[in-house]
Amino acid sequence: SMEEARADRKHEWIRLNVGGHIFMTTKTTLTREPHSFFFRLCQEDPDLPSEKDDSGAYLIDRDAQYFGPVLNYLRHGKLVLNKHIAEEGVLEEAEFYNLRGLIQLCNERIAERESPKVTK
Amino acid sequence: SMEEARADRKHEWIRLNVGGHIFMTTKTTLTREPHSFFFRLCQEDPDLPSEKDDSGAYLIDRDAQYFGPVLNYLRHGKLVLNKHIAEEGVLEEAEFYNLRGLIQLCNERIAERESPKVTK
Amino acid sequence: SMEEARADRKHEWIRLNVGGHIFMTTKTTLTREPHSFFFRLCQEDPDLPSEKDDSGAYLIDRDAQYFGPVLNYLRHGKLVLNKHIAEEGVLEEAEFYNLRGLIQLCNERIAERESPKVTK
Amino acid sequence: SMEEARADRKHEWIRLNVGGHIFMTTKTTLTREPHSFFFRLCQEDPDLPSEKDDSGAYLIDRDAQYFGPVLNYLRHGKLVLNKHIAEEGVLEEAEFYNLRGLIQLCNERIAERESPKVTK
Amino acid sequence: SMEEARADRKHEWIRLNVGGHIFMTTKTTLTREPHSFFFRLCQEDPDLPSEKDDSGAYLIDRDAQYFGPVLNYLRHGKLVLNKHIAEEGVLEEAEFYNLRGLIQLCNERIAERESPKVTK
Repeated sequence: SMEEARADRKHEWIRLNVGGHIFMTTKTTLTREPHSFFFRLCQEDPDLPSEKDDSGAYLIDRDAQYFGPVLNYLRHGKLVLNKHIAEEGVLEEAEFYNLRGLIQLCNERIAERESPKVTK
Repeated sequence: SMEEARADRKHEWIRLNVGGHIFMTTKTTLTREPHSFFFRLCQEDPDLPSEKDDSGAYLIDRDAQYFGPVLNYLRHGKLVLNKHIAEEGVLEEAEFYNLRGLIQLCNERIAERESPKVTK
Repeated sequence: SMEEARADRKHEWIRLNVGGHIFMTTKTTLTREPHSFFFRLCQEDPDLPSEKDDSGAYLIDRDAQYFGPVLNYLRHGKLVLNKHIAEEGVLEEAEFYNLRGLIQLCNERIAERESPKVTK
Repeated sequence: SMEEARADRKHEWIRLNVGGHIFMTTKTTLTREPHSFFFRLCQEDPDLPSEKDDSGAYLIDRDAQYFGPVLNYLRHGKLVLNKHIAEEGVLEEAEFYNLRGLIQLCNERIAERESPKVTK
Repeated sequence: SMEEARADRKHEWIRLNVGGHIFMTTKTTLTREPHSFFFRLCQEDPDLPSEKDDSGAYLIDRDAQYFGPVLNYLRHGKLVLNKHIAEEGVLEEAEFYNLRGLIQLCNERIAERESPKVTK
């Protein structure tokens, strides 16, 4: 029914409390990489104990500033970094969350930075 | 009547919850591009299912940081980017929201960056 | 009386909701330029329809990030811009708010950027 | 008594509402410079009329972004500026708050920027 | 019991109010360096008097902006700094919190900045 469809969509939305900062996203976004922290979080994996804050957001003891690029990677599959952001900051998060594609993208970006192409 | 005019203006304002961050704008701004996500959102297009958070803001599963330039484009028609912002970040959003004018402006800006003019 | 003086000072403070972000300032600051949007807002000009949010803040459908330099200009009369800020972003706001002095300062800054002095 | 000591410490904390943004600090930090705005605020100088917002924070009609370096100066006595921050922005605040040591540090930093040393 | 395990995990989470900004982290993260301010805070060291705000967060009279890198250091042991951040800002915090490893990392980074390697 339309009521059920509406309830399903509502159920889709997930609040995350990353180091004290609230982010909102969907289960569809968070489950895009099967072996990741987020996939396990959504599956309520018993080996990944999780707590929620008073607003119902999952508590994650990680940095909020580098979380934007992580979430965007899950949304569109690309690594987009503003010019002042340390690539290593996102790499640390990618490793913690076990996002293999993102780890590779960060490493490629760092390698590129360290040995820029001669011709451009 | 004056009461009705006031109610209309109040009705004008729309709250958006973009990835957990609240933005406020008007229907006039959001409906400026006819084929966009925002136009359809304001028309309550049945093919674009939408949910609201507890504060009555439309939930959008996208990045908040690149949303400022998107909204400003709808307000004044220009692409204004601070110097540290990755143009690709705004392009991704412009594509998601189907803002054709903004997609073109982002692509022009990227092309300019890649092959800067010899004379300045 | 002292009570009245206190009430007057309390009346001085104005909340602004700029695109979803709250700023606080005083009537004295906002009325510094006679022909501006803010002057008219404080005068409750009937030709400038205005709405307030639930917290009593005037709703303004403009960007919050470029609003800091605008408000600072009204506070101390200067244009102070961090190095990563696009001058065009503040210019757009200055034009919208009809702040003639600030428009001129922005244009001067852009001209300076485009043709830097040979000697420094 | 321990109860009194605890009450004293609680009394130490002060909320400041700087242009709409909340900062928290202590009386000890704010009274470090005897002739400053903050010293007079803490002394409740009758010539410095002050108002509080609903949360009990002192209302200050100044910029929030340049307030961090000001407060840090009172905490540790140094001027620490991120690379994108306009020194002039902090100088304006230092002058408003009458922080003589900070005014001098800002002026030195600006002079250094304008005429960099030949040897480095 | 499972109830106890859940209570323990809940007890793990700690709110910090750093200069007016809320951060959330765990006791495990905060107690990683034995002689630090945070270790003593978690041990409720009587020589380190501490107060909490109304939300139950420990009040800390320090800067919020440089706190991210401090907390990340405790999370993963590395110093990650965005390109516009003044290393001295983090060093000041590292010294206040008595984080010896972080002090060393900051000093190394500053030394590197002052005398960059000839070969890269």
